[in-house]
Amino acid sequence: MIKGIAASKGYAIGTVLIKEDTEVKVEERRIEDIQGEKDRFERALKASKEQLQQIKEKAEKELGADKAAVFESHMMLLEDPEFAGAVLMGIESSKVNAEKALEDVLNMYAGIFAAMEDEYMRERGADIKDVGSRILANLAGKAVGISEYKDNTVVVAHDLTPSDTAQLDRSKVIAFLTNIGGRTSHSAIMARTLEIPAVVGLQDITSAVKDGDTVIVDGVEGIAIVNPDAETVKAYEAKKEAYKKEREELKKLIDVKTVTKAGKRVEVAGNIGKPEDVHQVLANGGDGIGLFRTEFLYMDRDDMPGEEEQFESYKYAVEKMEGRPVVIRTLDIGGDKKLPYLPLPEEMNPFLGYRAIRLCLDRTDIFKIQLRALLRASAFGNLKIMFPMISSLEEFLKSKEILEECMDELRTEGKEFNENLETGIMVEIPAAAVNADELAKYVDFFSIGTNDLIQYTLAADRMNEKISYLYNPMHPAVLKLIKMTIEAAHKEGKWCGMCGEMAGDEKAIPTLVEYGLDEFSMSASSILNAKKLIMEN
Amino acid sequence: MIKGIAASKGYAIGTVLIKEDTEVKVEERRIEDIQGEKDRFERALKASKEQLQQIKEKAEKELGADKAAVFESHMMLLEDPEFAGAVLMGIESSKVNAEKALEDVLNMYAGIFAAMEDEYMRERGADIKDVGSRILANLAGKAVGISEYKDNTVVVAHDLTPSDTAQLDRSKVIAFLTNIGGRTSHSAIMARTLEIPAVVGLQDITSAVKDGDTVIVDGVEGIAIVNPDAETVKAYEAKKEAYKKEREELKKLIDVKTVTKAGKRVEVAGNIGKPEDVHQVLANGGDGIGLFRTEFLYMDRDDMPGEEEQFESYKYAVEKMEGRPVVIRTLDIGGDKKLPYLPLPEEMNPFLGYRAIRLCLDRTDIFKIQLRALLRASAFGNLKIMFPMISSLEEFLKSKEILEECMDELRTEGKEFNENLETGIMVEIPAAAVNADELAKYVDFFSIGTNDLIQYTLAADRMNEKISYLYNPMHPAVLKLIKMTIEAAHKEGKWCGMCGEMAGDEKAIPTLVEYGLDEFSMSASSILNAKKLIMEN
Repeated sequence: MIKGIAASKGYAIGTVLIKEDTEVKVEERRIEDIQGEKDRFERALKASKEQLQQIKEKAEKELGADKAAVFESHMMLLEDPEFAGAVLMGIESSKVNAEKALEDVLNMYAGIFAAMEDEYMRERGADIKDVGSRILANLAGKAVGISEYKDNTVVVAHDLTPSDTAQLDRSKVIAFLTNIGGRTSHSAIMARTLEIPAVVGLQDITSAVKDGDTVIVDGVEGIAIVNPDAETVKAYEAKKEAYKKEREELKKLIDVKTVTKAGKRVEVAGNIGKPEDVHQVLANGGDGIGLFRTEFLYMDRDDMPGEEEQFESYKYAVEKMEGRPVVIRTLDIGGDKKLPYLPLPEEMNPFLGYRAIRLCLDRTDIFKIQLRALLRASAFGNLKIMFPMISSLEEFLKSKEILEECMDELRTEGKEFNENLETGIMVEIPAAAVNADELAKYVDFFSIGTNDLIQYTLAADRMNEKISYLYNPMHPAVLKLIKMTIEAAHKEGKWCGMCGEMAGDEKAIPTLVEYGLDEFSMSASSILNAKKLIMEN
Repeated sequence: MIKGIAASKGYAIGTVLIKEDTEVKVEERRIEDIQGEKDRFERALKASKEQLQQIKEKAEKELGADKAAVFESHMMLLEDPEFAGAVLMGIESSKVNAEKALEDVLNMYAGIFAAMEDEYMRERGADIKDVGSRILANLAGKAVGISEYKDNTVVVAHDLTPSDTAQLDRSKVIAFLTNIGGRTSHSAIMARTLEIPAVVGLQDITSAVKDGDTVIVDGVEGIAIVNPDAETVKAYEAKKEAYKKEREELKKLIDVKTVTKAGKRVEVAGNIGKPEDVHQVLANGGDGIGLFRTEFLYMDRDDMPGEEEQFESYKYAVEKMEGRPVVIRTLDIGGDKKLPYLPLPEEMNPFLGYRAIRLCLDRTDIFKIQLRALLRASAFGNLKIMFPMISSLEEFLKSKEILEECMDELRTEGKEFNENLETGIMVEIPAAAVNADELAKYVDFFSIGTNDLIQYTLAADRMNEKISYLYNPMHPAVLKLIKMTIEAAHKEGKWCGMCGEMAGDEKAIPTLVEYGLDEFSMSASSILNAKKLIMEN
């Protein structure tokens, strides 16, 4: 029995398939034949593209376009002239081998993505690492082809890349186990999306098992049991059955309205990173979208997205949600989330820096394009606008002023929008929570962003492993700020939601119900369980 | 009339002396004769030492040991084998000229010191730059000797280095003006310490004046008037006289106990960075030391300071304060304040990272040495221990537990300490302020660290120029947290102080008096004015 971190719930009993670690160790070499080295890189790039094209076609046929989409973004990176250009320049200027030049460029990209708050963007970081490994493998003459799986397979790996997970055929792969990773690592998120049990952070599971071993994956307790005895297998088969029943019970809640024991109707909504994510929220019985992050529109590209393109994305989401509320957060970019076409200063403490509403109020040219697109999309459904990182009333009033300007423009141009659309703020900076009674007079709603609120309230970067133990949603100060915020909203007749991870946290839900939270927004896969818990409280 | 930033109050009318900018532009050259280049560096190093020795001797004789001390620390850096070693290694490994190798080493050091919170440590950064310029000048064959001044001189410079300011003979230099710098730059701090008027950030004052010009320095409004007419001179002479009277009035407050209009006795104390700073606090009528930063003991050296050495420093301060309270803050080091002998991980957001009490509770080996030294010094005066960066009750209780361990040890060893010494916390993390009612039950006192509290409450790094406009001590949320903290302390019969810059801020003092703050701690030069304001409120 090996203990790790429970990354995705459920139980599985299956046969081990060890996925070899494709990571290539890079050694620096001095290169004389620069042109030859550049050609070698170009060949590896070409080979990588061809492999990806094949994998993508197979994935589309067998697993659906949705899961094949990741390969599209990998190919885009390979075709990005800036990416290849940076490597070629590195070979030339530093006279080093292609592997080293590539690694330098990858590290630069990795640094940008690694510590991002949004899951969607952290996944982009994993994609880049993944593509990089593929090119490195090709430089080493090792092709990385298509993965084939037998029935009832438990994949065991050091770590899983996005292309590994995209190729996990759920009809055959029933669980996975990895050496590294935490609850918010890429592979953990993927496992929850795929709804297969997974345990991560098992340290050295790849050495503890061999191909063909039987293994039990306990995604509830976060343990793996290698070659279990008959009794254990029997016990786990019962657990698995019970869990399956529980899931089926939960599925019955999809169309049920969530009402607390006290009789309060509560909304359970989903957090999404791209328009198509609405489908998973609906499939899990979400009452709406409590947080639509819009950074996706701005990433992986060479220029600012235009109004038309943004409009289409927002319109898609609100139309598919058929009148259900869709709270769209305006651009939250800065310091740690850089865009190639928007140079930002290097910051000592990007979490305390120039970002989100601070950037938007400074760069109204960028802000207005988004606001116009949001307003126009509001004509097609129940869209609400939410401003991130508000620390003072002035910032909210200034944002509203710019929104009013956009409304005037659209009226002049004869373009439709919802004149009564709601505007609210993220309460994620301590100042906003402490000053909620004043802010509540002006906003239409609050949404408590617990991930940041906890970070700032405790002055602890949760991505920083040395002090992540301090990150505690149940800290009395955090709970007091949440209570203050909800009460302040209600006093002014406004609603208060929550869109941080805490909203889906089993330990927190009873307290949040007690405080009178009106809307709980979380990842789609947590919605049904949250509905059940809220109804029990 | 040229507008700049008021750095140090007062008025002066004097004669311009332009101090040439000694900054040397470094050009990179490829070196063949490595040994020759190393020798060249060693010679420049030796010349620099000889100059410093001379300047130091003269400064000691003419200006006192206090002001000559800066040259001691400069000589220590020159004699530090790691510093010289890094430059010699740079010459060898990169085959570059001594100037370039030196600049690389200087930049490395500068990066470490530049963004530090404590004034004392930022000054260390200025010292390193200063020493670097001296060596560069010697490499260029330009000796930087002793500055001689005529009576009634106003020094005009691009910027003033620590060795420039240490050589400012107050009997001759009556004010200074610089192109660059802000209110917290090294030269601004020095001007306030020397109590001479200064205006900084004047952009291009060095081009606007020439040697021998008459200039008025208005350190209140932050302006310089070049070659003023007779009428203006007369007006400023009147202002100068009035200001002098005001200062004299303030000096009368030195021995006055500070009592508010409502009849409350309030303590006005000083913040210090090294033991000898107590003298300036006493000279300005300070009732005690509200914040003694202990980082100085750990900086500029190759190994941890031992218990004996620390004990002597703390004992010196408490003895000189003769029974007045001396609140000593335990080590606040981490992320942005690195020590050569204590490797710390690179952090994405050092202000939200592994530092202060977090580090000390993790590295109890370091913590206990300091606590033992503090306890032993408590036998010699009114010493109180203050823990920084407390975010939860657990951290305080754990700190107390370790302190009790140290007490047990000292009892066993038969060493004296004050059994009843007070232990308190910095309230500088929003969680501590929000949760002050619980914490107040356990601590003996609070001291509100506004610099950090404001930063975290508003999620705005005040060192970050792009968003420093957000840093607002009078933000309603900040004021509410301060009020909550003071009230929580009083409810439990504890006292509450403040040791951030806000405590000496004219705009804030009336509100703080109203809230019932018990102790105001600030830089020594602000004490008298604060006493006056507090008594008026």
